[in-house]
Amino acid sequence: MTRFISEQAAALVPYVPGEQPKDRKYIKLNTNENPYPPSEKVIAAVREEASSLRLYPDPQADAVRDAAAAYFNEVFGLTGREAMDRDFFFAGNGSDEVLSLLCPAFFTGKKIVFADITYSFYPSFLSLFEVPYETIPLAEDFSVRTEDYLNLEDSVGGIILCNPNAPTGRGLPLAEIVRILEGNRDRLVVVDEAYVDFGSESAAGLVGRYDNLLVVQTLSKSRQLAGMRVGLAIGCPELIRVLHTVKDTFNSYPVDRLAIAAAKAAFEDRAYFEETRQRIMSTREETARSLQEMGFDVIPSCSNFLFVKPAAVPAKDVFLQLREKGVLVRYFDKPRINDRLRITIGTPEEMDALLRAVREILQ
Amino acid sequence: MTRFISEQAAALVPYVPGEQPKDRKYIKLNTNENPYPPSEKVIAAVREEASSLRLYPDPQADAVRDAAAAYFNEVFGLTGREAMDRDFFFAGNGSDEVLSLLCPAFFTGKKIVFADITYSFYPSFLSLFEVPYETIPLAEDFSVRTEDYLNLEDSVGGIILCNPNAPTGRGLPLAEIVRILEGNRDRLVVVDEAYVDFGSESAAGLVGRYDNLLVVQTLSKSRQLAGMRVGLAIGCPELIRVLHTVKDTFNSYPVDRLAIAAAKAAFEDRAYFEETRQRIMSTREETARSLQEMGFDVIPSCSNFLFVKPAAVPAKDVFLQLREKGVLVRYFDKPRINDRLRITIGTPEEMDALLRAVREILQ
Repeated sequence: MTRFISEQAAALVPYVPGEQPKDRKYIKLNTNENPYPPSEKVIAAVREEASSLRLYPDPQADAVRDAAAAYFNEVFGLTGREAMDRDFFFAGNGSDEVLSLLCPAFFTGKKIVFADITYSFYPSFLSLFEVPYETIPLAEDFSVRTEDYLNLEDSVGGIILCNPNAPTGRGLPLAEIVRILEGNRDRLVVVDEAYVDFGSESAAGLVGRYDNLLVVQTLSKSRQLAGMRVGLAIGCPELIRVLHTVKDTFNSYPVDRLAIAAAKAAFEDRAYFEETRQRIMSTREETARSLQEMGFDVIPSCSNFLFVKPAAVPAKDVFLQLREKGVLVRYFDKPRINDRLRITIGTPEEMDALLRAVREILQ
Repeated sequence: MTRFISEQAAALVPYVPGEQPKDRKYIKLNTNENPYPPSEKVIAAVREEASSLRLYPDPQADAVRDAAAAYFNEVFGLTGREAMDRDFFFAGNGSDEVLSLLCPAFFTGKKIVFADITYSFYPSFLSLFEVPYETIPLAEDFSVRTEDYLNLEDSVGGIILCNPNAPTGRGLPLAEIVRILEGNRDRLVVVDEAYVDFGSESAAGLVGRYDNLLVVQTLSKSRQLAGMRVGLAIGCPELIRVLHTVKDTFNSYPVDRLAIAAAKAAFEDRAYFEETRQRIMSTREETARSLQEMGFDVIPSCSNFLFVKPAAVPAKDVFLQLREKGVLVRYFDKPRINDRLRITIGTPEEMDALLRAVREILQ
């Protein structure tokens, strides 16, 4: 250990991302990547932009913000004075960076709450900025109890809701999000919607009505751009402005030229986005049925993964045996969920291979 | 102003990057970009990687670290037990992100010193992490006085040296860096070498000997990749390990797949790198002579820019008139340097256009 390490760094618990193995070729159902490649228009946009790399990118990635505004206005039917412009959007290096920047922007000096079972990156980035947090237990079936987020004690300054939640896949209806927003007008409510396009309701259409709402999305999942690192915050312009200030003290250009080109093209190719997300949702439902037939407990999922409990064999054994058979899924060795596996939805062929492997293990 | 802003964010002074104007086409000599496009091998590597974007990148960008190790071992003639491997390298989203991550890794709880006239991003990222700092005045001719960095008071925990310095362009000889390293064995000495490939001596070959040395470099300048955001920290493995921990609490994948492919190819195409940097240095010397002939005071530069003082017309007027004529340079309205302009070295044709415009202004 170097003697130069800060006291703070010595105490950090870094996030552990899902494996990116290099030892052999796996069917990779462990990091919730999209099984389909990006749209051909995205690839063409990237190839075209490749000749401009000597110049710095637009520090605010306006092309992404404009394309996102056009997409969300269309989805939510916002026109005229209700329509959102780029001032409602912040673009960062993946939604993880966007989440991290929330700390210096809004969270330092306050206590934050989130579910006991949720995206395991939250404690990491909060600890980096020394923001204290408390967890609120999910119900037995892993659903969020809205009442738990009303009448919070005064010391709580912010709430993070992952919706749909990871790794459970459960979605919270928009009406419940509204209740939480209404009950916390003086707390910032961050809704992390990394998986929202796979069957949950987005709160992004509410940012014009609630100045205490900040929605975080990513292009890594439903838009096939995990490799490009683009995430968004969506909120009222006053909130977005603070994120830009903080970004400019950390790194002026977190989204590179090719990421900007890719993200813009991805928002614009609405047809491909719709087609691939529908395909993933339908594969998910088929896979869920097959696993249930094999005795798995399957939580209803609004995301591109299933969170399942095998009946006869311990989850960890299934995880390890799947790995040996060349299928990677995710196992969390943590209280309440160490009897489950999180399985990313791949192509129908990949899911057939998974199901075959599971059948062999259960025999 | 949103009521949710943190006290910390309200007090931040964000870095102001050089203009990326959209109103008209300028000869852009204001952000020290490289006038030459990246190597064709870099563009080919990016185009080839464009089909893999659905997958997350390697979180540690090992391909970049390996390519950097091979490059530096060759440059410094390090072989056998002296050779550096990937463990001596950290890759981040541009050298700005690398610098920012130094705070939680090493700087929090300590006081940092750097020159009064240097890269204006330093106060920004230090303020984001609430790290106190003091500046040490450069000599009258903008050179670093090594003695000022010896016998520092006990409260100083780290030193940042920008070498060659920006915006002055002056280089500090390696022997002076060694004196500072020797005189500060218990302080972390960060040498920011963003411009080192344009005629200064790199300290990167010393990291095996000094565990208090961390060298920061970027691929934005001499390797034409400003648009791709790749920066490096080079240091002993114990220091590098802390940066990885901190990175994993902030954002697991700051360097995207295309940035990794581009950076690797850029390190590998040594011939193109040598050719373009030599060309820039020779254009710089020609431009310096021409400006001197027009009465400018020109500081000897080891970088891809010149820091010059016009004789008859105030610098700010020259800056504004150049802008009107379609030539962007950088003017800093700050004490000690508000009588100067920083002019990036472009192609010979761009510098001819600059010189013509200057002549018109001086007439």
